[in-house]
Amino acid sequence: MTETNGYFQNDNEKELNIVNLPSLEAEAEKIIPKGGFGYIAGGSEDNWTLKANTEAFNHVQIVPHVLSDIEDPQTNTSIFGIDVKTPIMMTATAAQGLAHAKGEMDTAKGIAKAGALMEQSTYSSTSIADTMAAGNGAPQFFQLYMSKDWTFNESLLKEAKQAGAKAIVLTADATVDGYRESDIINDFQFPTPMANLTKFSEGDGEGKGIGEIYAAAAQKISPKDIQRIKDIAGLPVIVKGVQSPEDALLAIGAGADVIQVSNHGGRQLNGGPASFDVLSDVAKAVNHRVPIIFDSGVRRGSHVFKALASGADMVAMGRPVIYGLALGGADGVYSVVEHLNDEFKTIMQLAGTKTIEDVKHAKLLKK
Amino acid sequence: MTETNGYFQNDNEKELNIVNLPSLEAEAEKIIPKGGFGYIAGGSEDNWTLKANTEAFNHVQIVPHVLSDIEDPQTNTSIFGIDVKTPIMMTATAAQGLAHAKGEMDTAKGIAKAGALMEQSTYSSTSIADTMAAGNGAPQFFQLYMSKDWTFNESLLKEAKQAGAKAIVLTADATVDGYRESDIINDFQFPTPMANLTKFSEGDGEGKGIGEIYAAAAQKISPKDIQRIKDIAGLPVIVKGVQSPEDALLAIGAGADVIQVSNHGGRQLNGGPASFDVLSDVAKAVNHRVPIIFDSGVRRGSHVFKALASGADMVAMGRPVIYGLALGGADGVYSVVEHLNDEFKTIMQLAGTKTIEDVKHAKLLKK
Amino acid sequence: MTETNGYFQNDNEKELNIVNLPSLEAEAEKIIPKGGFGYIAGGSEDNWTLKANTEAFNHVQIVPHVLSDIEDPQTNTSIFGIDVKTPIMMTATAAQGLAHAKGEMDTAKGIAKAGALMEQSTYSSTSIADTMAAGNGAPQFFQLYMSKDWTFNESLLKEAKQAGAKAIVLTADATVDGYRESDIINDFQFPTPMANLTKFSEGDGEGKGIGEIYAAAAQKISPKDIQRIKDIAGLPVIVKGVQSPEDALLAIGAGADVIQVSNHGGRQLNGGPASFDVLSDVAKAVNHRVPIIFDSGVRRGSHVFKALASGADMVAMGRPVIYGLALGGADGVYSVVEHLNDEFKTIMQLAGTKTIEDVKHAKLLKK
Amino acid sequence: MTETNGYFQNDNEKELNIVNLPSLEAEAEKIIPKGGFGYIAGGSEDNWTLKANTEAFNHVQIVPHVLSDIEDPQTNTSIFGIDVKTPIMMTATAAQGLAHAKGEMDTAKGIAKAGALMEQSTYSSTSIADTMAAGNGAPQFFQLYMSKDWTFNESLLKEAKQAGAKAIVLTADATVDGYRESDIINDFQFPTPMANLTKFSEGDGEGKGIGEIYAAAAQKISPKDIQRIKDIAGLPVIVKGVQSPEDALLAIGAGADVIQVSNHGGRQLNGGPASFDVLSDVAKAVNHRVPIIFDSGVRRGSHVFKALASGADMVAMGRPVIYGLALGGADGVYSVVEHLNDEFKTIMQLAGTKTIEDVKHAKLLKK
Repeated sequence: MTETNGYFQNDNEKELNIVNLPSLEAEAEKIIPKGGFGYIAGGSEDNWTLKANTEAFNHVQIVPHVLSDIEDPQTNTSIFGIDVKTPIMMTATAAQGLAHAKGEMDTAKGIAKAGALMEQSTYSSTSIADTMAAGNGAPQFFQLYMSKDWTFNESLLKEAKQAGAKAIVLTADATVDGYRESDIINDFQFPTPMANLTKFSEGDGEGKGIGEIYAAAAQKISPKDIQRIKDIAGLPVIVKGVQSPEDALLAIGAGADVIQVSNHGGRQLNGGPASFDVLSDVAKAVNHRVPIIFDSGVRRGSHVFKALASGADMVAMGRPVIYGLALGGADGVYSVVEHLNDEFKTIMQLAGTKTIEDVKHAKLLKK
Repeated sequence: MTETNGYFQNDNEKELNIVNLPSLEAEAEKIIPKGGFGYIAGGSEDNWTLKANTEAFNHVQIVPHVLSDIEDPQTNTSIFGIDVKTPIMMTATAAQGLAHAKGEMDTAKGIAKAGALMEQSTYSSTSIADTMAAGNGAPQFFQLYMSKDWTFNESLLKEAKQAGAKAIVLTADATVDGYRESDIINDFQFPTPMANLTKFSEGDGEGKGIGEIYAAAAQKISPKDIQRIKDIAGLPVIVKGVQSPEDALLAIGAGADVIQVSNHGGRQLNGGPASFDVLSDVAKAVNHRVPIIFDSGVRRGSHVFKALASGADMVAMGRPVIYGLALGGADGVYSVVEHLNDEFKTIMQLAGTKTIEDVKHAKLLKK
Repeated sequence: MTETNGYFQNDNEKELNIVNLPSLEAEAEKIIPKGGFGYIAGGSEDNWTLKANTEAFNHVQIVPHVLSDIEDPQTNTSIFGIDVKTPIMMTATAAQGLAHAKGEMDTAKGIAKAGALMEQSTYSSTSIADTMAAGNGAPQFFQLYMSKDWTFNESLLKEAKQAGAKAIVLTADATVDGYRESDIINDFQFPTPMANLTKFSEGDGEGKGIGEIYAAAAQKISPKDIQRIKDIAGLPVIVKGVQSPEDALLAIGAGADVIQVSNHGGRQLNGGPASFDVLSDVAKAVNHRVPIIFDSGVRRGSHVFKALASGADMVAMGRPVIYGLALGGADGVYSVVEHLNDEFKTIMQLAGTKTIEDVKHAKLLKK
Repeated sequence: MTETNGYFQNDNEKELNIVNLPSLEAEAEKIIPKGGFGYIAGGSEDNWTLKANTEAFNHVQIVPHVLSDIEDPQTNTSIFGIDVKTPIMMTATAAQGLAHAKGEMDTAKGIAKAGALMEQSTYSSTSIADTMAAGNGAPQFFQLYMSKDWTFNESLLKEAKQAGAKAIVLTADATVDGYRESDIINDFQFPTPMANLTKFSEGDGEGKGIGEIYAAAAQKISPKDIQRIKDIAGLPVIVKGVQSPEDALLAIGAGADVIQVSNHGGRQLNGGPASFDVLSDVAKAVNHRVPIIFDSGVRRGSHVFKALASGADMVAMGRPVIYGLALGGADGVYSVVEHLNDEFKTIMQLAGTKTIEDVKHAKLLKK
């Protein structure tokens, strides 16, 4: 147990016996301090979209092909030339020091061990370089909360490039903080600094609420910012938070290299559609022009399968990885990804799909 | 605490720390006497329509436009030339003295402070002139429960005009009281007089049940009454309680200047549709000939957004304001409107809409 | 309290203060002995159809016409020349002695007082003539559970005709007893005789289970039986238990004078549709060739309205009347009908309908 | 009570008073040791498909034909020349020794007594010949979990043929074990041997988990295996686990003599459709080329009816029979089949269907 400004951080380091990812939340709640847990677990308004995210996977069913003559399904895949062992990846998630003393460094270590991809958040507890180093060469993307201050943006983007990030994730669905009731009830302020903000004139986040932090970021994000970021970073840009065919096409037209279909895990616009409910329409519009990363609500092997079969190329999650981090550090993170990948492999075999390409062409049913 | 005929009225005057509007009901129940609370909170029959009103907002979702290049959304708007700071307004609600000793006067003060519009009820606890004066020049409409006695109607309409009301609201959905079980269970009679009824031969409402009061009103309301009221009052007429495209067109044909889509908060016809479920069809029929006010079930910023994006020009609420009045008087009312407007502004920004006009053109999805 | 073979029957005689009909069930359960209550309240299998019967009314909503210029709605109507004060009637229900010492005689008295129609059951506790006499000239139909023994059928039909019955109700949906779990759990046998069966060679029902009683009835009922019954009784025949357009047309072709859309209150075929869910399709097929009586699931004024607006000419109920009988004898029965008619009148006024004919042309919405 | 390796097996032998099949599960849970019960009752992942299997029967309703002139419905039918007293049969279910000391032998005896069909599982506790002998000439099929070791497959198939099996059931939906959480939570290993595996080089299953056992089976099952099995066994082949029209046609093209629509009782692919939800589409594609056996979720007489009316020729169940076995041995099994057949006969009569052929042409409604 580590104490930082009165906030107690876990420093567990162990593999986890996981029955299923949904059950991790209650375990994590026991060891993450209340304010931090509320920040991580909470959604916005009455959590309608948060709950809908996971329930939406029941809107379609997997139709198995049972005489498929396959065995030993393979989950390896790639996204713009980056080979990974699994389509399951870690989405950008802020302030992981709330869950564990080692924060993003342990996440990077666990994700790397699982052969998976990771997105670092601008609001990480640990620095770009430290997180990258912890991943020991495993591929990472850097997520940018675009600031009003372009000196700051340039500095971060260059640091990311230099540290070896393979792409920049531009978050577009969080130009202001969602109305998050648990943070309000808990009167939550970040107890620990955000490493990337220490170079920022307005402070490192410590002692601030999420509203204040977002306020320092840019509210006005336009399609033109995509190219501007590409030019500065010299890296592909992923536009994260797309929830409509129109925005997907607009982003691609403006230079986006990847579309990340996401509603920020139900933490931003409550009353918006479940992320999975818009995936297939976005995918039809994108029509393979660029790859699609999907997140929000993924908790089961069958969810991973349904997302891929609905047009996603990669499937990301956030909260379950953070819970794994809290409960077991790097090895906990590894256990979470491995567990979900195991569930997914079972689904692949039972559905009669040998490769990720097969999964993408599997049949779904609406009943 | 003020006592009137054995009924204890609150006289709180304070701003409220509001987490969300739905949670106000339980707080208000603690301080409003049982009969009064039942009258305010209750719906008719088994409350199916009352519950459906709020649940119906989940029938559509807001599709955000995330690369919209906007910041600092503006909620100011106008309705037939009246400028307001927010499309959120107070719908006509009877007997506010049940909730607070100052009744409608405090509501008017709080609504005015929020820069919003208010409808006064015929069955107000305070008089037209007193309520208008408490609003200190802020725009108000006067709602008419049309009496069988046209001398009475004329007297009220002229008083409203003279006091400065900007329009007359003709309530069309309450020609008899809905079957309200809580009033029956509580054997509820109004403990306090209704100021506008003191000039009425049949008594001021004190000691009467809602059924008796409605019985004195006119049951027969016809399209012709719209023009008759316009002629007497010399003011625009809003027809309140419209729930079908047919009635909307009929009312406009007969001279209605505004349509108020409402089912009286589920207090009248139980088994009728959720108000939100009929809004877009009514709006298509109205086709911008006149403005539309929408009410019934609104509790969230996302509800305000969805109503505007479905064709409403203004979005009204009743019960949450009354709860704010009970808990904090004029400042409580102000807090309620401000809170909902803040939630709404967050939704506007996250949906990528800068102005009320943008909201009206936002994309909704049915899933 | 009257005791018959160890079974305690109530002999309450009083008007009831009714808040709503659904709440009567729990009150009645306190005073009707367990076996009798289980027989009355229970449905078949897992009660899916029983529950669906009432829930199905939520599948459509009443669209009110609010500028309708009406007041004082009138519920009087008629069916093949019989004038009644209300479209609400009592459906055939067996063995009312289970609920009250006076059984069907009190039901007849209460129904007559309400100016309503009543169907007597073959399996009544009191005789045709006694029940008819208790109604004191008010119109009644006689329901026939067709026996294998046509001497018995003829005897009953002639007795009914002679006693003044206005029509014969041929129950077609109960050729065997539904799988009623409460009767099995309670090992229920009728504690009291069925008056009409005393003339029947196989016994009067006392001490028998419902299965044995149905077994003595005819399983084979064919369209030809309709004419045979008409010929014997010289009365119009109502075919009760129709749940499809096909059977309605078949019955009309074979001479049926009225179609009673019913699933026996969910007591027979479980897994069949809610009665209200098939009403409008049956009505379209019937196309006003003959009147339609509707029953199964009716508990609210809005249900009565929706059934009439979906094609019914009369709306019947069973259990709520029996509960009224148990709680208040003839006056209890009267209170139940009056209460439902009052709720219905409120709905009529709020929906803008002055007459039953108006209700039949009212607009419903599916949302 | 018999003890085997510390696992207590019941040895009840008695007929059961059954109210309904769903209520047997709680009774059985009291007498089957925890690990065994979890294995029998559990589904995969979060049991979505398991629950959907039974709920899906509510997606359609039985429209009765009430003037059908029938009595005494007959449940006898046949499948490829095998006459049976009921379309209700026992699906393949592993390791019945978990529920009762006599295991499959008692099941065979009870099923035979009911005049029904039975599928033996490869993973039976008792041997092919013993189970067949217990059935005393009643028809049985032998279910094959195809091994990677064809010597083993041939040996089993020949033994089945020699013992008198009428067909081979090739299970195609279980090429790996579903993700069954109860087995994981209970750390379940089979406490007793599987008779057919004793001749298998890798062991008889005792002390192994279900995952290890499935791992020894073939994962690669292709359409060609159908003909190979037919050639070896000289018996018709039923392909079990088909959930799509495509797989049904593929299997028939490859020689399948029967299609068994099944999702393994929700124990394999979670997130797949309810078995009943795909039945009618599969039946339309099969178009009477071969018979269809249906299983998964059947608990009620109305379920049997709905499955037959949706295209099934036989309707199988698993868990309820196992619970009957645990509670009453052979007579318990008999009671379960008889009970369900009785419920089904009631439904047949009430729906107006005299024969299984009538049931197959009955009308269903989607509401």
